[in-house]
Amino acid sequence: MDMKPGLEGVAAAETKISLVDGERGRLIYRGHRAEDLARTRSPEEVAFLLWNGTLPDPDEREAVRRQWAGARVLPGYLKGLIAAIPREVQMTDVLRTAVSAMGDASFEGPPTPEQAIRIAALLPSIIAFRRHHLAGTEPPAPRPDLSHVAHYLYLLRGEVPSPAHVRALEAYFVLTAEHGMNASTFAARVVTSTRSDLISAVVAAIGALKGPLHGGAPAGVESMLDEIGTEERIKPWIRERLERNERLMGFGHRIYRTEDPRAAALREIAVRLAAGEPWLSLAVRVEEEALRLLEEYKPGRRIRTNVEYYAAALFRAVGLPRELFTPTFICSRIVGWAAHAMEQAEHNRLIRPDAVYIGPLPD
Amino acid sequence: MDMKPGLEGVAAAETKISLVDGERGRLIYRGHRAEDLARTRSPEEVAFLLWNGTLPDPDEREAVRRQWAGARVLPGYLKGLIAAIPREVQMTDVLRTAVSAMGDASFEGPPTPEQAIRIAALLPSIIAFRRHHLAGTEPPAPRPDLSHVAHYLYLLRGEVPSPAHVRALEAYFVLTAEHGMNASTFAARVVTSTRSDLISAVVAAIGALKGPLHGGAPAGVESMLDEIGTEERIKPWIRERLERNERLMGFGHRIYRTEDPRAAALREIAVRLAAGEPWLSLAVRVEEEALRLLEEYKPGRRIRTNVEYYAAALFRAVGLPRELFTPTFICSRIVGWAAHAMEQAEHNRLIRPDAVYIGPLPD
Repeated sequence: MDMKPGLEGVAAAETKISLVDGERGRLIYRGHRAEDLARTRSPEEVAFLLWNGTLPDPDEREAVRRQWAGARVLPGYLKGLIAAIPREVQMTDVLRTAVSAMGDASFEGPPTPEQAIRIAALLPSIIAFRRHHLAGTEPPAPRPDLSHVAHYLYLLRGEVPSPAHVRALEAYFVLTAEHGMNASTFAARVVTSTRSDLISAVVAAIGALKGPLHGGAPAGVESMLDEIGTEERIKPWIRERLERNERLMGFGHRIYRTEDPRAAALREIAVRLAAGEPWLSLAVRVEEEALRLLEEYKPGRRIRTNVEYYAAALFRAVGLPRELFTPTFICSRIVGWAAHAMEQAEHNRLIRPDAVYIGPLPD
Repeated sequence: MDMKPGLEGVAAAETKISLVDGERGRLIYRGHRAEDLARTRSPEEVAFLLWNGTLPDPDEREAVRRQWAGARVLPGYLKGLIAAIPREVQMTDVLRTAVSAMGDASFEGPPTPEQAIRIAALLPSIIAFRRHHLAGTEPPAPRPDLSHVAHYLYLLRGEVPSPAHVRALEAYFVLTAEHGMNASTFAARVVTSTRSDLISAVVAAIGALKGPLHGGAPAGVESMLDEIGTEERIKPWIRERLERNERLMGFGHRIYRTEDPRAAALREIAVRLAAGEPWLSLAVRVEEEALRLLEEYKPGRRIRTNVEYYAAALFRAVGLPRELFTPTFICSRIVGWAAHAMEQAEHNRLIRPDAVYIGPLPD
């Protein structure tokens, strides 16, 4: 038997959903470069692409917009249920529980795009309701005219966000919607392989994503930038870390040998927004200096900026508090999980590896 | 890259927990035959064995008994939360949501036996509370003097069950506590491999177990025995099915080439109980006839009785309604999930297979 702890180098599926090409620094969604989609398409359109294989035509686009907008109102029983969760419970756990509580007979059978929209469209409403509930405030009335991401910011802040902020966070949603067979996506596929429902698959994926090894938590980057604080402190702060051989948050990636295309696309937006935001221009300057000093201290290692770096910068720019960084990642990545659940269900084979017993035997 | 859809024949881990030896019809838990443990040990003791590697000594046994008994009282917030779930939602979904809602900072860090007891001991209370709530009745007051399984039956029925019923269901709990790397157990390990918490692992496993391909749902057996109904109908009913080349529920197993040791152990108990139970003696007679006719219609295939067959018979004998068959399986199997989560955390490596992209590329 092949012993493969971690399953590295074992292909558990063929997929038409995405290609994570670490050598060439490409992320392809169904034949399209993710960074091109981030410039030109909304997250709702990209979800359609990842689930159906093609971009929506104008009629489909309007139908999709309406479906998402129609699915964002939190049912009363879910409000009661979320309110029953003790207040010290963190938001990722609240999301896992609330999504699980959506499970009913309407989710039976193979996962569909309609089911995926129902879950994905509700996640921001769950997050916003929970925050308002804890603060003792009321979320604003739903606005069916706003896009998915605009509505998320609107629910949190109580006012319609600027188009620049919406576009920035939409780019993040598009760029992080899908990233191949990571642990959370694989968990969703394992669950789906028993012909279980999409709710169970998403709940498993949320549980996997919250693990510290999954990565994708940009909160550490924000702490780093906060610690640096001012332009003068950039160089000495980074040098000190590198002298002690410490990692810099937001740099380096397991897969991308060249630049992470998502980081590059988010940098573009960050630079554009930076004019009015001192913290964002600090982030841009820190990156320049960090890349220069990384090359000096670790020559030839070509350590590059990863997606978390600029995700953190953008989250802060659009006003997301740190405790919503991972929950917001869940809001975007659910699209990829659902795509993989649909693909797994379509070409299903029960995922059931073996294990090698190395314990004692009876006499 | 190795293409292994379903991961068959790929060993995802070394394990000291159990050996499922299909060729020789053996199920070994940490060096002990499961059927021996079912005769001599309580589910609480076997959980201790699976989690810690050794059977408890008398002092540990008393400590374990107290831990389980102390963890079975449903906190008030969970009652409110379970009551908020719409009444048409099925019990497996209720369990997934309620376990998720137990998640808080006390479950952070690597999984421990104490955490596992907290979840496992509460599952029967969740089930019983839900049933009483739907029926508009009150669960009886907790009885710390009763064993885990006795308390489960007590909560459901409102009276202390007979020792024969307790021993029968305890044997089921021991025999189905653990069964190697099936899809639900693997889902728990994938989630744990990100260093996520035990709650997330168990929630993922419940979601996988409810899938129809996971198997382990003895409800079909009960329907079959109900349809047969009387001794005179056994032979013609089975012949008719086999003539049409239909499967008989409760016979055949993917892994065991010889008799499933769990079925044999449960049969022993069923035969003992059957004196006073016409339905149970019907089950014993149906098995005899089915094995005879399977050999006649499929000579040499050696199709044997599986664990679901006698699980269904015992569930009915102890008074569990059909909709609690899968939830009761969750109550027993959580022990194996927790054992694997602990083992995964101890020798951790992030489980992250690859996928082969077969979609289009950009120009």
